[in-house]
Amino acid sequence: MWLRIGCDLLFEIEVPTPFILMLRPRSGSQQWVARDEFKIKPNVPVVEFTDDYGNLCQRLVAPPGNFSIKTNADVKTSEFVDVEPGAPFVEIQNLPHDVLSYLLPSRYCESDRFSDLAMTITANYLPGYNQVAAIETWLLDTISYIPGSSDYPISAIEVNYKQSGVCRDLAHLGIALCRNLSIPARMVVGYLYKLEPMDMHAWFEAYVGGRWYTFDATQNRRKGGYVAIGFGHDAADVAVFNQFGPSVYPTKQVVSVELIEEKN
Amino acid sequence: MWLRIGCDLLFEIEVPTPFILMLRPRSGSQQWVARDEFKIKPNVPVVEFTDDYGNLCQRLVAPPGNFSIKTNADVKTSEFVDVEPGAPFVEIQNLPHDVLSYLLPSRYCESDRFSDLAMTITANYLPGYNQVAAIETWLLDTISYIPGSSDYPISAIEVNYKQSGVCRDLAHLGIALCRNLSIPARMVVGYLYKLEPMDMHAWFEAYVGGRWYTFDATQNRRKGGYVAIGFGHDAADVAVFNQFGPSVYPTKQVVSVELIEEKN
Amino acid sequence: MWLRIGCDLLFEIEVPTPFILMLRPRSGSQQWVARDEFKIKPNVPVVEFTDDYGNLCQRLVAPPGNFSIKTNADVKTSEFVDVEPGAPFVEIQNLPHDVLSYLLPSRYCESDRFSDLAMTITANYLPGYNQVAAIETWLLDTISYIPGSSDYPISAIEVNYKQSGVCRDLAHLGIALCRNLSIPARMVVGYLYKLEPMDMHAWFEAYVGGRWYTFDATQNRRKGGYVAIGFGHDAADVAVFNQFGPSVYPTKQVVSVELIEEKN
Amino acid sequence: MWLRIGCDLLFEIEVPTPFILMLRPRSGSQQWVARDEFKIKPNVPVVEFTDDYGNLCQRLVAPPGNFSIKTNADVKTSEFVDVEPGAPFVEIQNLPHDVLSYLLPSRYCESDRFSDLAMTITANYLPGYNQVAAIETWLLDTISYIPGSSDYPISAIEVNYKQSGVCRDLAHLGIALCRNLSIPARMVVGYLYKLEPMDMHAWFEAYVGGRWYTFDATQNRRKGGYVAIGFGHDAADVAVFNQFGPSVYPTKQVVSVELIEEKN
Repeated sequence: MWLRIGCDLLFEIEVPTPFILMLRPRSGSQQWVARDEFKIKPNVPVVEFTDDYGNLCQRLVAPPGNFSIKTNADVKTSEFVDVEPGAPFVEIQNLPHDVLSYLLPSRYCESDRFSDLAMTITANYLPGYNQVAAIETWLLDTISYIPGSSDYPISAIEVNYKQSGVCRDLAHLGIALCRNLSIPARMVVGYLYKLEPMDMHAWFEAYVGGRWYTFDATQNRRKGGYVAIGFGHDAADVAVFNQFGPSVYPTKQVVSVELIEEKN
Repeated sequence: MWLRIGCDLLFEIEVPTPFILMLRPRSGSQQWVARDEFKIKPNVPVVEFTDDYGNLCQRLVAPPGNFSIKTNADVKTSEFVDVEPGAPFVEIQNLPHDVLSYLLPSRYCESDRFSDLAMTITANYLPGYNQVAAIETWLLDTISYIPGSSDYPISAIEVNYKQSGVCRDLAHLGIALCRNLSIPARMVVGYLYKLEPMDMHAWFEAYVGGRWYTFDATQNRRKGGYVAIGFGHDAADVAVFNQFGPSVYPTKQVVSVELIEEKN
Repeated sequence: MWLRIGCDLLFEIEVPTPFILMLRPRSGSQQWVARDEFKIKPNVPVVEFTDDYGNLCQRLVAPPGNFSIKTNADVKTSEFVDVEPGAPFVEIQNLPHDVLSYLLPSRYCESDRFSDLAMTITANYLPGYNQVAAIETWLLDTISYIPGSSDYPISAIEVNYKQSGVCRDLAHLGIALCRNLSIPARMVVGYLYKLEPMDMHAWFEAYVGGRWYTFDATQNRRKGGYVAIGFGHDAADVAVFNQFGPSVYPTKQVVSVELIEEKN
Repeated sequence: MWLRIGCDLLFEIEVPTPFILMLRPRSGSQQWVARDEFKIKPNVPVVEFTDDYGNLCQRLVAPPGNFSIKTNADVKTSEFVDVEPGAPFVEIQNLPHDVLSYLLPSRYCESDRFSDLAMTITANYLPGYNQVAAIETWLLDTISYIPGSSDYPISAIEVNYKQSGVCRDLAHLGIALCRNLSIPARMVVGYLYKLEPMDMHAWFEAYVGGRWYTFDATQNRRKGGYVAIGFGHDAADVAVFNQFGPSVYPTKQVVSVELIEEKN
C-alpha cells in the first residue's frame, strides 16, 4: 500500500537553539520512499547525517522567532505485518553481531529487573515468536493504552507500576520483557495508518527466527500500514527531535497519514 | 542557490536484470536536499542501502520490457566553490583514518605510475592546494575535454596517452596525479548547473588544509552549482548504474538542472 | 610507562553457557598494546568481533565443568592523565556526529533527571572542562567510594540516593551530571596502576575542548597508569563479561597490574 | 592446528618516513589469535586503527637510522580449507550489501576486460563454486608461479600477458576472472604453513553458496594452514606496509611459520 505521511512542527524560539531531528523516513527492506519533502522556515543551514543505528538525522540551530519544520513523504509499505508463529528463539551464539546490543538493558528498558514477570507471562509458550506474541497479548490485556497521557518517556519499571501508558511506554515494557528472555528487541518510531487519534507512533520489533518482526501492544489486530522513521534501543535513541538549552515545546504539531494511489 | 536536478533513464530489458543505482542525492555538509522524488515503472521492489562510501544506492531486478527510472530533487548548494590558495599539504601522519584509502592507486587511477609527470607539473608550487590547482590548470591546458567522446571509463594512463577525454577521464588523471604526491583525492559524480552539453558530470576533490576541496578540469572558472550524488575512489565506485548479466544501455537518458526559487 | 595487565577468571559451568567477553585491550590513540595473550581452557571455538563502540569482544559457549579465561597484555600508557582547565564547552552544533549519542540518557545514567543538581554543583564554573572538574570534585567530596560494596550496576539516581558506591557507580553519577549540562560523557572500563584494592576499574571521560578527557572520582590525584579495555554509554555497554542463561559468577577473579621495563 | 607466525622487517631510514603497517593478524570466524607481539625499535608512537575492510593497521613515522619491526603471533587455524563443489552462484539481488563492492573492477583486477577468457575457462562448469575451481585449475595449469619474480604488483591484464607471476599476481588474475562472472572475489594477504620458499603469501577468496571460500592457484593441494592478516579488493588495499616519501625497502625481511603445541 502507498501512504503519504506528514509531520509539521512549529516552535517559538527565544534563544538560538540546537536541534537534532529524526523525521525523515528512509528506504529500507520494509519500505520504499518514492518522494520526500523537508521544509524549514527560516531556511537555516542543515547538516544531515546517519546516526549509529542507521537513522537519517538533521542538525541545525533554530534562530529566535517562529521556527517551522514541514515534512512529508510518499512511502510504499505492507498492508499486513508479517506474522510467524513458531519462529524459533535464536541462540545467543548464532545472533548476528549487530543485533547483540539489543539484548542489553537501556535507559527506559531495565530488562535486568524483570525476570519473574517475563517468566510468568511466557511460561507456557515456545521460545521465540510465541513468547513475544504472549508478551504483546499480556500488554494488550493488562496495561491500559491511554494516548496523550504522558509527555516524556517513562521506563518499563515505571510503566509496570502505573499499569498504563502511551504507545512508547507499552513498547518499553514489551522490549524489557523480551530482552529479559534473551530475545533482542528494539524500539521503532514512525507513523501508523488509521491510528486513533492520529499522532506519531511507537512500537517494537523482536528478533526471532533470523529476522526482526513487528509487535504493537496498542492495536488489537495484525494490520500493516507502518512507516518507520527511527530505530533504537528505546525512546532515548529515537526522539523525533532532541533540543538543547532551555526547553521548547512545539506550539503546533500536525501529523497525517493518508492512503494514496499507487505511484510509479 | 537552489537547483532542481533530474535524471530520467529508459531501458529495454530482455531478461530479468539486476541493477544497482546511484542516483539519489543525499544531504551532507555541502548540500541540502529539500525534496526528492524517485519513480520506477513498473513498480518492482527496491532495497535501498548505503555503500562503503556513504552513497545512497538502490538494488532492484528490472523485468523484461520497458523499464523507466525518473528521479528529481530540489537541492541547495553553493554559488561558488571554495577556493583556498595556500591551504597546506597534510602530513600523512595527520590525515584522518578514513581519508587514507584515497592515497592508494585504484582501478582507473594508477597513481603508482605517475611520479615524473606529477613532479614536473607541480615543481614550482607550494605543497597542498597550489599543487592541486597546478594539476587542474595543466589538465585544462593539456588534455582536450571532449564531452561524449567515450562510453566506458578509461584509466589515467590511457587518458594521458590519448590526451583527450570526457569529464570522468580528466578526473581520473587529476586524481592519479594528486595521489602520486600523497594528496588524497576522490571522484565525485553528480550534476553541474549550466554544464554544456547538459549531462551527468564528474569532477574530483582533493584533501588539503584539513578538508576536501572541489576541482574540475573541464570548466575554466571557479563557479559553483555542483550537486553530488556519489563519492568514490574512481569511476568504478560511482557508476550511476551498475547492471549485471547481458549488457543493456539506456535507450533514453535525460538530465536536467534548473535554477529554482528559494524553497522554505 | 609500560604496564603488564592481567585478568584471570574461573567459572564453574553447569549448562552450556553463551558468553560475550570484553577483556582484550586494543591499541588506540591513548595506549599501545605491544603484547597480548588470551587463553581459554577448555579450548572452545571463539569468534572475535568489534562492537558498536569499537571494543574488541569475544563470543563463545562455555561447556559444563571448569572454564578458565586468562588474559594479559603489555601496554604503553601515560604516566599522567591530560588536564586542561579552561578547555571550553563545545557547542552542540560543533560536536562530531559520533559523539552526539553520549549526550543522551542511558540505562544507568538518567541524565534527564539531574537538572537541579548539575546546576548547583557547577554554578560558579566556566562551561566545559571546569564544570566537569567541579563535578569530579563534588563526587570525591560527597559520594563515599566503597570498593566491593555492590555486585551489580546501580544507576545515577540510585547512587545519588545511597551517597556511596563502587567506581562504576560514581562514574554513572558523573556521566549523568555531565550529560545534563550537554557535555558528552562516556564510561570506560579497564585497569589502573596501583589501584587499592587491585581489581578491574571504571572511570569516565568527558568531551570538552574538542577531545575526550579522563576523570575519575575515586582517586584524589591526577596520576595516570590507565589501561582501557572498553568504552560505552554506561556499565550496560561495557560489562567485562555478559553471560546468558542461568547466572554464573566467577569462582575466582585475579586482576593484576605491574610496572615493567620499557619494551621495544 | 596451532601456528606461530612471525615477520621481522628492518629498514634503513634517511628522512622521517610515515608508514602504514598491516602486519597484525586479527581473530575472526576463521582464525583465533591467542597471543600476539608487536615490537618496534626505536619505540616511536604508534596509532592503531581499523581500515575500511576491517584490517588492523598501525600508523607511525619512522625516524632516520635503523628501524625494526618484529611481529609474531600464535594462531589457531584449520588444517584443511573448506571445499564445497556445487556451492551455487549467488544471484546479485541476494548478495549481502557489504559484498557488492567485490564485484567491481579494482586497481590490479580489471575485471571489465576479461569476458572472453572467463567464459572460455568456465564454459562447462556449474555457476558458482565449480566455476571458481575451474579458474583456479586453469591458473595452476597455465600461469607459471615463480616466487620472487617481481617486486611490485602487476595487474591481471599484465599477468595474463606475461603468463607468469608471484602469488599476488596469480590472485589478481583469479579475482578478475571471478568478478567478470559476477562472482564477488577478494584478495587475502597472510601466511601459509610450509610455503616454499617461506615468505608472506597472497591468495584469493570467492563468495559462492552464501560465504567466502579460499582459493590458491599456487598450491596444488587443498591443505590448510592459512593465517590471514589483511583482506581487500586487490594488492593496493592490503600492502603489508605502505610508506610515503622517498622509497625505502626492507634491508631484511624474515618470515616464519612453525607448528606449535595446542595452546590453552
